[in-house]
Amino acid sequence: MTDYLVRPDPADPRLTRRVSGRDHEGKDIETSVTMERPLTLFLNGQEIVTMMTIGDYPEYLAVGYLLNQNMLRPDDEITAIDYDDDIETVVVRTARKTDFEDKLKRKTLTSGCAQGTVFGDLMEEFEDVTLDADARVKTSWLYALSKTVNTTPSLYLEAGAIHGCVLAHQDRPLIYMEDVGRHNAVDKIAGYMLLERIAPDDKIFYTTGRLTSEMVIKTVKMRIPILVSRSGFTAWGVDLARQAGLTLIGRMKGKRFLVLSGEERVVYDADPASLGEEPSRHRRKGAEDDN
Amino acid sequence: MTDYLVRPDPADPRLTRRVSGRDHEGKDIETSVTMERPLTLFLNGQEIVTMMTIGDYPEYLAVGYLLNQNMLRPDDEITAIDYDDDIETVVVRTARKTDFEDKLKRKTLTSGCAQGTVFGDLMEEFEDVTLDADARVKTSWLYALSKTVNTTPSLYLEAGAIHGCVLAHQDRPLIYMEDVGRHNAVDKIAGYMLLERIAPDDKIFYTTGRLTSEMVIKTVKMRIPILVSRSGFTAWGVDLARQAGLTLIGRMKGKRFLVLSGEERVVYDADPASLGEEPSRHRRKGAEDDN
Repeated sequence: MTDYLVRPDPADPRLTRRVSGRDHEGKDIETSVTMERPLTLFLNGQEIVTMMTIGDYPEYLAVGYLLNQNMLRPDDEITAIDYDDDIETVVVRTARKTDFEDKLKRKTLTSGCAQGTVFGDLMEEFEDVTLDADARVKTSWLYALSKTVNTTPSLYLEAGAIHGCVLAHQDRPLIYMEDVGRHNAVDKIAGYMLLERIAPDDKIFYTTGRLTSEMVIKTVKMRIPILVSRSGFTAWGVDLARQAGLTLIGRMKGKRFLVLSGEERVVYDADPASLGEEPSRHRRKGAEDDN
Repeated sequence: MTDYLVRPDPADPRLTRRVSGRDHEGKDIETSVTMERPLTLFLNGQEIVTMMTIGDYPEYLAVGYLLNQNMLRPDDEITAIDYDDDIETVVVRTARKTDFEDKLKRKTLTSGCAQGTVFGDLMEEFEDVTLDADARVKTSWLYALSKTVNTTPSLYLEAGAIHGCVLAHQDRPLIYMEDVGRHNAVDKIAGYMLLERIAPDDKIFYTTGRLTSEMVIKTVKMRIPILVSRSGFTAWGVDLARQAGLTLIGRMKGKRFLVLSGEERVVYDADPASLGEEPSRHRRKGAEDDN
């Protein structure tokens, strides 16, 4: 396996639980199910939201959430992040005074796995972002990346009913986050990138989820020029990707994929004929687990 | 095809759009993508939320959303539902005066495809519901239902990146709703059931999405005793189903499924050996499209 910076830990006993039940033949069985637990997020003195999460990286999740909601600015000085396991609370403290009473009053819900996103806010920066025009993605990287991610031991393979997101450089996956909510997985990566100072320009973002407007907006906000998914597109997702000049690659399975925006970044260096269809061992088994 | 009361209309030109792009060989292609459009919901004089939806049943969606958020009571007299296509607005009017200023201030986000749900509210009734203990589900119904749903022409089969929910009686699917947000599909069914006075006790709820806490809570609120999914379980979903006595059937593909709650309602009348594995033509092709 490649040397991930962060990867799933399916053996972590906090993340799954064994439950008993019956199978299709009426036999008693035991299976693993994914845990979800509440995490209440405070920004300085203010309660922002309670999220349901698997709970593995509360600090990254907290920071990434605030960043993606424009409640935290990339240049904000974070003075402390206090996570309290017992009371399931995380407090992010900043040098700058913050007040989001008004913002929290009006929420627009987005499609897919929306988190009650303050959508107008999400869009705030969108039009000002310029993505790296010189970034390239080789099809050989896409194939290698896809294979590595889909064969990496994960909660998904262990228990299903979970989303995955991966930040990659070329064909190497760097950070692989999973969560019950897809946007939590994205936010954990955004938080990691901010706190660990990871540059976005030469990165590829891979997700198991659909390429919705919200997914596109978050990728653009993170300034990552290439977004890849096994899943499909929505019309608005495609529109926004084109507007931002984001390379949008979807329905990536086996040798197949479609590019619906930013085609100029794709370098066709692999011979798809040598790949064939996706072998069943790479198929994400609980495919419909994605919501 | 069985006689659905409501079924997807993949030919509706409002619901998909053709877009051009490139495939894995670098060839120019055209494909269909699912539309998503904003719908702003008012309850009497108050703006409640803006949702992203495919837009096919705004009235059912509006009523189902309000009902599932406990903003509308099942016995409320609805005096009018005014949908305005141009300004993408739907107004639900009730005889009872409503005021949800306070409720809207505090939102708890749930996992999976949460809509910024007022989670505390969602739970309000949960503990008081008693589901029909005499309801039964035959495995032969499950297999037939699954096959019918998966071969019914749908936006999913046309464009992917969409969720489906089905209300069924025995092996007959009655109402098949799709939407970009899974919870929109559920809410459209809830709205339909209220407005068209469909009894829940002898029904089965089938979803393409995961069996999360929120999905379980909504099914229980709708008073449907049996919830079935192709997808997996979360731990809290299983806990809540057991608490409510809901029959929870997941990972249903081909002959296989698991029952993790309410096993006593399942009648094993089919011989799984005669079914084999799921034929690939029944596989939901864009499996990971589900979020």
